[in-house]
Amino acid sequence: MELEFIRWLREHVPADPRAKLGLRDDAALLSLVGNPNIVVTTDLLTDGVDFRVGVDNLKRIGRQALGANLSDLAAMAATPLAAFISVALPRTGPAGTGPLEMAIGLYEGILPLAREYDIAIAGGDTNTYDGPVVISVTAIGQPIQRGPLTRSGGHAGDWFLVTGSLGGSLLGHMFDFTPRIREALTLHEHYGLAAGIDISDGLAIDASRLAEASGCGAVIYTDRVPVSPDAVELAGRDGADDVEAAALAHALGDGQDFELLFAATPKTAQAILNDRPLDCRLTHVGELIAEPGLWQQTATVARTRLEVTGWRHE
Amino acid sequence: MELEFIRWLREHVPADPRAKLGLRDDAALLSLVGNPNIVVTTDLLTDGVDFRVGVDNLKRIGRQALGANLSDLAAMAATPLAAFISVALPRTGPAGTGPLEMAIGLYEGILPLAREYDIAIAGGDTNTYDGPVVISVTAIGQPIQRGPLTRSGGHAGDWFLVTGSLGGSLLGHMFDFTPRIREALTLHEHYGLAAGIDISDGLAIDASRLAEASGCGAVIYTDRVPVSPDAVELAGRDGADDVEAAALAHALGDGQDFELLFAATPKTAQAILNDRPLDCRLTHVGELIAEPGLWQQTATVARTRLEVTGWRHE
Repeated sequence: MELEFIRWLREHVPADPRAKLGLRDDAALLSLVGNPNIVVTTDLLTDGVDFRVGVDNLKRIGRQALGANLSDLAAMAATPLAAFISVALPRTGPAGTGPLEMAIGLYEGILPLAREYDIAIAGGDTNTYDGPVVISVTAIGQPIQRGPLTRSGGHAGDWFLVTGSLGGSLLGHMFDFTPRIREALTLHEHYGLAAGIDISDGLAIDASRLAEASGCGAVIYTDRVPVSPDAVELAGRDGADDVEAAALAHALGDGQDFELLFAATPKTAQAILNDRPLDCRLTHVGELIAEPGLWQQTATVARTRLEVTGWRHE
Repeated sequence: MELEFIRWLREHVPADPRAKLGLRDDAALLSLVGNPNIVVTTDLLTDGVDFRVGVDNLKRIGRQALGANLSDLAAMAATPLAAFISVALPRTGPAGTGPLEMAIGLYEGILPLAREYDIAIAGGDTNTYDGPVVISVTAIGQPIQRGPLTRSGGHAGDWFLVTGSLGGSLLGHMFDFTPRIREALTLHEHYGLAAGIDISDGLAIDASRLAEASGCGAVIYTDRVPVSPDAVELAGRDGADDVEAAALAHALGDGQDFELLFAATPKTAQAILNDRPLDCRLTHVGELIAEPGLWQQTATVARTRLEVTGWRHE
């Protein structure tokens, strides 16, 4: 099946001047321009954990796999360069589909997203075996002139800004999210951000990771968290007595939002909030503080500890 | 288990100046020096196809996974820079081993090889799921000043040189092979090679791939093929009447030799054979010809067609 699939790929993957040898050699050859550094991220997704083959369609699963990696490039404010897609496929898929059909299904989600974010599909490896679908994506990007955004550049006093709205990704956002590449590049290029992370495991845990890497603690303004309609919907389905509190818990703890959490000096953050340079929502959702740990406060309730909820990869 | 494993990794993966952020951010940041091009290769290996968990030990499996990618870098004559290792692990392994133990087992094969070939382990993703072991490695290298070696640079009249000896890799060479990085760099740097490929699927099929990419055909001198003792051993076990012919068939068709097949002009090839600059065996095993297809000849038998045996990834 691999040879047949490679033929399909060669017909469907556009030639890209950045990947000089196409898909034809032992390795891809990538040309870099400008910055002599590259940013590399890799994510492996498995059936039953990150998606459910036979329930979620393959096109959405493929989009999710590449999108999660683009989101990591966004967290570094890196321009997408090339992606490498490796797949392990069962010999027989749901409803008797063969591996070729499954591979094409995945790529029908991967290729449009690659085109949209101008990332070259420069290589990969497609295999069949006796096991569930596994997708491993490695994405390479180039930092902008200002250098990469990292988790560790924040300081006490910096404001937290978050893109989009949070929680309830299980209802579909986990597949349909927008990798925040454009947003990260715009903000870091024009304003200069201090630190960034993508919310893949939940606002609470990812905020505390950024804070810890920056040698700080984090406060979340829980009355300002942009709770998504899907978080409210899930909270309703949960049958919670206090739907608002339950929706907030989803926004704090649900993974796979793939929104970006940035730290910026108050002056920079205020300028960004005044200028509104993004098409998406951007919310001042907290701050970095000297005191370690994760904290919450509202306009009316004083600072208390906040539980670090979120997906812990255990 | 992932957090615990990351702690283990941080203790065991040496800091590397080429991977500036260590294993601590959303992505790795790699510094390139000199050549503004990079070479990227990726291989995904699965239990039951490339190795057998419970039969082969995990250390050897880990070594194999990184080694196969180093072999691809060697085929491009690229200097190893960084590798990214992603693993999907069953919740319970053979004899009740847990995923943490399995992950460490794999890395006990990966880390010494990484050290030996000076490649930074710069990132990865380790997951548990309900399925067999899957390992996906992406390796990044930098071409030497002369530029990368490719499959397509050969011309009719070029000689084929092959490192080491071939066939019978199932008896252990598939795990214990030497990625031919040093050999490729020495030859390409000092002599200039025309084309190269690593023999991952078998001499016959990989020679025809190099020839086709170079717009040529290939002749194998079947009386000169360096048949490994393991190929002879396997031929004996097969119970073949003509053990010599059966051993040759193994040398032509067995995969996972991970030796290198180079094309060079007769003058260059002759200089290399005279100088003997390598520690390993190097054999003049054939030539590129204008006539397409795969051919065989010996000192006494005229040229005839040769069947393209080898592993076809179907």
